[in-house]
Amino acid sequence: MSMKLRAAIVGSTGYGGVELIRLLLTHPNVEITSVISSSTAGVPIADGYPHLNQILTENLDGIDIEQIAAKADVVFLATPHGVSIDLSPKLLDAGLKVIDLSGDFRLKDTAAYEQWYKHKPADPAYLEKAVYGLCELFGDEVPGAQFISNPGCYPTASILGLAPLAAKRWIDLKSIIIDAKSGVSGAGRGLSQTVHYAEINENLLAYKVNRHQHTPEIEQAISRLADEEVTVTFTTHLVPMTRGIMSTIYVNLNQTRSEQEIHDLFSSYYEGRAFVRVRKLGKYPGTKEVTGSNYCDIGLSLDARTGRLTIVSVIDNMVKGAAGQAVQNLNIMMGWDESTGLAFTPVYP
Amino acid sequence: MSMKLRAAIVGSTGYGGVELIRLLLTHPNVEITSVISSSTAGVPIADGYPHLNQILTENLDGIDIEQIAAKADVVFLATPHGVSIDLSPKLLDAGLKVIDLSGDFRLKDTAAYEQWYKHKPADPAYLEKAVYGLCELFGDEVPGAQFISNPGCYPTASILGLAPLAAKRWIDLKSIIIDAKSGVSGAGRGLSQTVHYAEINENLLAYKVNRHQHTPEIEQAISRLADEEVTVTFTTHLVPMTRGIMSTIYVNLNQTRSEQEIHDLFSSYYEGRAFVRVRKLGKYPGTKEVTGSNYCDIGLSLDARTGRLTIVSVIDNMVKGAAGQAVQNLNIMMGWDESTGLAFTPVYP
Amino acid sequence: MSMKLRAAIVGSTGYGGVELIRLLLTHPNVEITSVISSSTAGVPIADGYPHLNQILTENLDGIDIEQIAAKADVVFLATPHGVSIDLSPKLLDAGLKVIDLSGDFRLKDTAAYEQWYKHKPADPAYLEKAVYGLCELFGDEVPGAQFISNPGCYPTASILGLAPLAAKRWIDLKSIIIDAKSGVSGAGRGLSQTVHYAEINENLLAYKVNRHQHTPEIEQAISRLADEEVTVTFTTHLVPMTRGIMSTIYVNLNQTRSEQEIHDLFSSYYEGRAFVRVRKLGKYPGTKEVTGSNYCDIGLSLDARTGRLTIVSVIDNMVKGAAGQAVQNLNIMMGWDESTGLAFTPVYP
Amino acid sequence: MSMKLRAAIVGSTGYGGVELIRLLLTHPNVEITSVISSSTAGVPIADGYPHLNQILTENLDGIDIEQIAAKADVVFLATPHGVSIDLSPKLLDAGLKVIDLSGDFRLKDTAAYEQWYKHKPADPAYLEKAVYGLCELFGDEVPGAQFISNPGCYPTASILGLAPLAAKRWIDLKSIIIDAKSGVSGAGRGLSQTVHYAEINENLLAYKVNRHQHTPEIEQAISRLADEEVTVTFTTHLVPMTRGIMSTIYVNLNQTRSEQEIHDLFSSYYEGRAFVRVRKLGKYPGTKEVTGSNYCDIGLSLDARTGRLTIVSVIDNMVKGAAGQAVQNLNIMMGWDESTGLAFTPVYP
Repeated sequence: MSMKLRAAIVGSTGYGGVELIRLLLTHPNVEITSVISSSTAGVPIADGYPHLNQILTENLDGIDIEQIAAKADVVFLATPHGVSIDLSPKLLDAGLKVIDLSGDFRLKDTAAYEQWYKHKPADPAYLEKAVYGLCELFGDEVPGAQFISNPGCYPTASILGLAPLAAKRWIDLKSIIIDAKSGVSGAGRGLSQTVHYAEINENLLAYKVNRHQHTPEIEQAISRLADEEVTVTFTTHLVPMTRGIMSTIYVNLNQTRSEQEIHDLFSSYYEGRAFVRVRKLGKYPGTKEVTGSNYCDIGLSLDARTGRLTIVSVIDNMVKGAAGQAVQNLNIMMGWDESTGLAFTPVYP
Repeated sequence: MSMKLRAAIVGSTGYGGVELIRLLLTHPNVEITSVISSSTAGVPIADGYPHLNQILTENLDGIDIEQIAAKADVVFLATPHGVSIDLSPKLLDAGLKVIDLSGDFRLKDTAAYEQWYKHKPADPAYLEKAVYGLCELFGDEVPGAQFISNPGCYPTASILGLAPLAAKRWIDLKSIIIDAKSGVSGAGRGLSQTVHYAEINENLLAYKVNRHQHTPEIEQAISRLADEEVTVTFTTHLVPMTRGIMSTIYVNLNQTRSEQEIHDLFSSYYEGRAFVRVRKLGKYPGTKEVTGSNYCDIGLSLDARTGRLTIVSVIDNMVKGAAGQAVQNLNIMMGWDESTGLAFTPVYP
Repeated sequence: MSMKLRAAIVGSTGYGGVELIRLLLTHPNVEITSVISSSTAGVPIADGYPHLNQILTENLDGIDIEQIAAKADVVFLATPHGVSIDLSPKLLDAGLKVIDLSGDFRLKDTAAYEQWYKHKPADPAYLEKAVYGLCELFGDEVPGAQFISNPGCYPTASILGLAPLAAKRWIDLKSIIIDAKSGVSGAGRGLSQTVHYAEINENLLAYKVNRHQHTPEIEQAISRLADEEVTVTFTTHLVPMTRGIMSTIYVNLNQTRSEQEIHDLFSSYYEGRAFVRVRKLGKYPGTKEVTGSNYCDIGLSLDARTGRLTIVSVIDNMVKGAAGQAVQNLNIMMGWDESTGLAFTPVYP
Repeated sequence: MSMKLRAAIVGSTGYGGVELIRLLLTHPNVEITSVISSSTAGVPIADGYPHLNQILTENLDGIDIEQIAAKADVVFLATPHGVSIDLSPKLLDAGLKVIDLSGDFRLKDTAAYEQWYKHKPADPAYLEKAVYGLCELFGDEVPGAQFISNPGCYPTASILGLAPLAAKRWIDLKSIIIDAKSGVSGAGRGLSQTVHYAEINENLLAYKVNRHQHTPEIEQAISRLADEEVTVTFTTHLVPMTRGIMSTIYVNLNQTRSEQEIHDLFSSYYEGRAFVRVRKLGKYPGTKEVTGSNYCDIGLSLDARTGRLTIVSVIDNMVKGAAGQAVQNLNIMMGWDESTGLAFTPVYP
């Protein structure tokens, strides 16, 4: 099918890579031409992921820039942080389009990257080229871009829940608290005691309190929307389920607004966007209502007693929080409808 | 889109109905024109299923034969047993194609229906028209049929796991034991203490031991394949997960056959079928490897010590065990490729 | 065993009642003499709870004040709200000790009860007698009391997490935000679609946002500790697990304090208390670490960037959040060691 | 407390070890004097198991025979297979009582051990001393014994479900099929992809089909009861829950017996035994009904159509399947009541 865009996926044996495969396999304009893994090249991907039997029968490729450039037009990087810092420049120099799902090119401030990721930052020359692809907010920079830095899972849910208020500056920007909860797939396929079944099943954990590397990413986006330096309190929890993120967000209003006015603001802000659904007042989305889909669903409640607003924002961390948004970015980059290949109904129940 | 086949779904507010909606919404040749519920007609379906917000905004219709006939070409019945007995004849008489997901027209023996379902059986005249749509085995009766009786979830997994051996008569037909395990969605959306979260979470239950109404359905199909009356032992269990069925099947061989010969038999029997995947010897499929998809995956092991064969057969009970096979039947009925609209990759993890 | 205190449990067929049974059966000083259920009197309790087979073989009694007074010295009420309002006065008048696990006598402000519970409040004469039994904070009123109002599950975790800071007034009392998460058993055994397995499994829900009836209970206790009227923001979530509550609490400090000073405050505040465990700095308790036990485990983190403190407080909602604390109250009431019959190690994993 | 029996636990940082700790901490006649781990000696056990904070504050000891002999009277080995083969002889020679929870001394046939465990077998001289401690069946050899080999989890559930029929020889001994299902804690705390949360949650797996090392252990016990060499078909599955084992057992009767006669046989066989509960006809136990307790609950159903009997036997794999039965063996060994320290009510829900 010579008319299709040829895609390579680096990091195909991680959960992000395998979700990209699921989504791209039914994308009408894309053909997967190479699935790449540095660790297990040379064996069929279905050996490690039997659900792909008879669906994707190719062997995994190793990382070879020339080979990738020969086989693909666009490369998705679903790699642990640190890998893209070296790899993306080479792929870009080879003329490839790159969509990086890792955190390596999200922070424009290299010192912040170094502080939160404990890793040397990317080359500023390439950092400059990276478009932060939170489609609903900064999507107008995406068409025609060569290099997309795909947002993190927690930031996607959190920033979409805050954006209308930050952009309008209806809130005290010092008051932002984000209590975020994630399904366990967010921790990836790498083994660890924390996500060993018998440890995390029937358990609820807070982790990296005040230290999660997604904190500066959220702050960078909210600061940009509000046009003012913003610092947030951000806590992450692991919930015993596979998929789903919920950010419960607390902000103080800095002006008198009714719940209805705030709801109207959200509705108009996201009007016409395929993947953000604002719930009716009094309704709050559950994570299961977006499972397997690219939606971000939002509900809100204003407490008249405290003047504080509570916002509930949910996504599937593997889709809108990773692979789905990456495909959405590809669509926008290529000038296709943003929902091409993503018009999935959530899998319910 | 006048070129599309117009589909109505009766029982749209059950899990089977809502899964049909998910599958049909992305089917290229079908358009959903009516979602029907006798109990909650007149309200938007998304009121009860918020995951459908902005996807399916129609109000639910009531059951009205004339209205259905005006709006639809094909009707799916995802109703509790007993409903279709009266409804299907009327829909058929109105000239509609009918695909019945309930058990009402599966058993050709009306006495068996009455005994196992504790309900008066269907009119034999209509029973005769019903084609039992286990696509991989009896699919050649489906093209052009007006009325399909879609197989049950447990029977689909169990019969597909037994079919090659029954058809070849390599086994002692008196020795068949099926130990079946199902995710909780199989119990439907109706409330009951058994499937109350705190009762069934972290629990494993055997239920309806030797009394499950799917027993005669399995026996009817195996008898037909083996051309001999067969009785089976069949036990059902509830497993604390939402989707998935596994049938672990035990049979005694009635002749000397190697494990490899048996594997070859399965491979050749299902060769060319899109939705049955036979695992390599030594590998057994997990239910998660088919979640969200229409696959039936099969593994097997011959115990040289006992001469007994163990077969593991898994499906997603909501897809191959219900809505997916119904769509597959529609495809075959209409002369379309059987995987039209069903080429989903399983959702993993 | 005539030397033992005789206990009756009203509401024995709810989860709170059945957990009281589990704890009291191994209490060295207590004998269960009547298990009472208004709805299913006359049948063995093990009919509805087979785990009690051969353990508790008595039939359920109905509610009969004279009979209770003849059989028991102390009555536990594990009833839905509204029941105790009428029942407790009668039991108290009959000279019985009463430990009420429901919310009916927790709020001293009858208008607040009416507003949040949507039910007529208790008789002020009896309300006055009710001692709010949050043992670690107000336990000195318990010895010799006749009537204990046992705290709610969310309030127990939340108030214990806030108490040292509220009592010392180190925090801005207007800044308190409690993001609480509960296992599903907290919703009780009554059937509802929200806690139907297939709906809440692999799901995370916010509910009763800004409207949960435990809000004024928390405010009453914090106000009492801080000696000032306090209003809090309180959000509740359902997590797909059976047991456990986590309150993640956010407060702004109103003075400069180091993380170590705050940790020292917590450690000294709870020194000598059997059931509160303060984690080392940098460690946060998971709910599973207290499952089946009466512990409340607390961790904390001060964010130097925002001056905001995050506190993580976990309990087993069925034990410290209900039946365990009720037994602890009985122990204190009777002058026994508070951990009598409660020295369980958490069930892990 | 010099009157208490002093116990050491080798393998304290595995799930079996930590469950022994939970049970022994409330045992009235036993004192834990040493918790031992070869891998993490020298650190507090609560570092790896925070639920033990303030409960067990000792540091872990290394393996040192002299030190163990000085500190303890009885040693529990909760070690991976292979360890006890060398360690138990040394402990026995040092005069200690030993209760070995591993599989090393369960099989009297050393060739079978080597075949199924792929490891050199134990010294026959010590193997001879090992009493196989399935308390309800072979408990009369336990009093006064020095060395107990504690049964495996699957064998305990399976053998107890079969014993009355095997001992009476009412069944065709060639017909035994055991379809066993286990919670994930049975796989231990060691990391592996199979029990990584996102892989096994919402999944159901068959594993080691016809190759599980518990097969010969079951066969040995059934052969002993029936006084005839027996071979069984045995399949194991992993179920997405933490605790619990269910063995669903299929046998053909070799004589005409009514369901009631069989039920009577089971009832009389286990009469007076504290930890086996036979359910009424028509009722089947769920695993949750024994969680946290030492019970084995059994239900059965005879299918008149096939003459085949189905038996459902459940235990908590960590208790009756490991630590609980070990304590029960200690009780019997010491001449104490078998339920001393084990009279727990199951944790429900």
